[in-house]
Amino acid sequence: MSITANPQVNGVDVPTLFATLDAVRAQNEIAAFRFRASNTWVRGTHSRSTYSGFFGAGQEMQHRHETVVESDHPEVLVGSDQAPTPVEYLLHAIAACLTAGIANVAAARGVELSKVSSTVEGDIDLLGILGLSDGSVRNGYEQIKVTLHVEGDADDATLRGIVEQSRRRSAVYDVLTQPTPVAIEVVTG
Amino acid sequence: MSITANPQVNGVDVPTLFATLDAVRAQNEIAAFRFRASNTWVRGTHSRSTYSGFFGAGQEMQHRHETVVESDHPEVLVGSDQAPTPVEYLLHAIAACLTAGIANVAAARGVELSKVSSTVEGDIDLLGILGLSDGSVRNGYEQIKVTLHVEGDADDATLRGIVEQSRRRSAVYDVLTQPTPVAIEVVTG
Repeated sequence: MSITANPQVNGVDVPTLFATLDAVRAQNEIAAFRFRASNTWVRGTHSRSTYSGFFGAGQEMQHRHETVVESDHPEVLVGSDQAPTPVEYLLHAIAACLTAGIANVAAARGVELSKVSSTVEGDIDLLGILGLSDGSVRNGYEQIKVTLHVEGDADDATLRGIVEQSRRRSAVYDVLTQPTPVAIEVVTG
Repeated sequence: MSITANPQVNGVDVPTLFATLDAVRAQNEIAAFRFRASNTWVRGTHSRSTYSGFFGAGQEMQHRHETVVESDHPEVLVGSDQAPTPVEYLLHAIAACLTAGIANVAAARGVELSKVSSTVEGDIDLLGILGLSDGSVRNGYEQIKVTLHVEGDADDATLRGIVEQSRRRSAVYDVLTQPTPVAIEVVTG
């Protein structure tokens, strides 16, 4: 479990990871990031978002490549099911955030992972969004359950500790479990 | 603004939309849905999620096609930038959810839309997730801002009313702005 022999652990460049932490510690303002997505309605409940750039480390940056993702509603909800629903993207977000954190934390602790996989389930009662509830049913997920399978060259307690540290530092976990202000500005044409 | 001449408004089959509402009103239990994603770690902070099926309307269902999405961290955060970050998927989710709602609500109100587009920005101070804050900086977005451009055959007030109704019924808006329980179960191997 030493990190000195090979600085790359789990595909994470550990010396650069620690150097990055030092750089941010020395200059807190480079930690201010602004992420963005641009969405365009296609038809019905089908829309498409594009990711290209973001602001971070004090400057405007471009992703290595542009990514396009789509959403739609399923046919049983009168959509055309061209893509996953918007709420399904929340499930990817929490899985990917926890998994990235697990890889980073494990690398920082010198633990080589051999497998991280997860299934995420989100329970939602559509009486809320359909306006058929008396107010007792919320619009969003009642609960989200993440089941993580983690394997690596460490014991059960160490692996669980890595997952717990990832959860404690997860941006998506925080947004889902704590209120996040969402401002909506409308321009009509 | 009549919906009787053509039941398809904005690509939304309005009679089927109202029939679906009636069906759920008559049998509330078909409104219980469970969405799922399966995620697999690739390397470093890079992972991949797959969407194939979900439970809804009392039965197991398959999406019309399987969708794969990926996430990574940017290079400035010691990732390999193979895909958008996990938090960027939250921005797509809110844009797509509001947009689908706008199309549905407009159709139900007989308003033909000619354009819906949006940009979503999420501000995050990475001092939180990097563990460099004294506790005053949260891990997630400090705020999310959605700027929506909506055009259609209705006046400004009507279009704004449609957006507001979409917000009121948005599942993603609810998950972001209100606490949602996230349970994490860990299996080690």
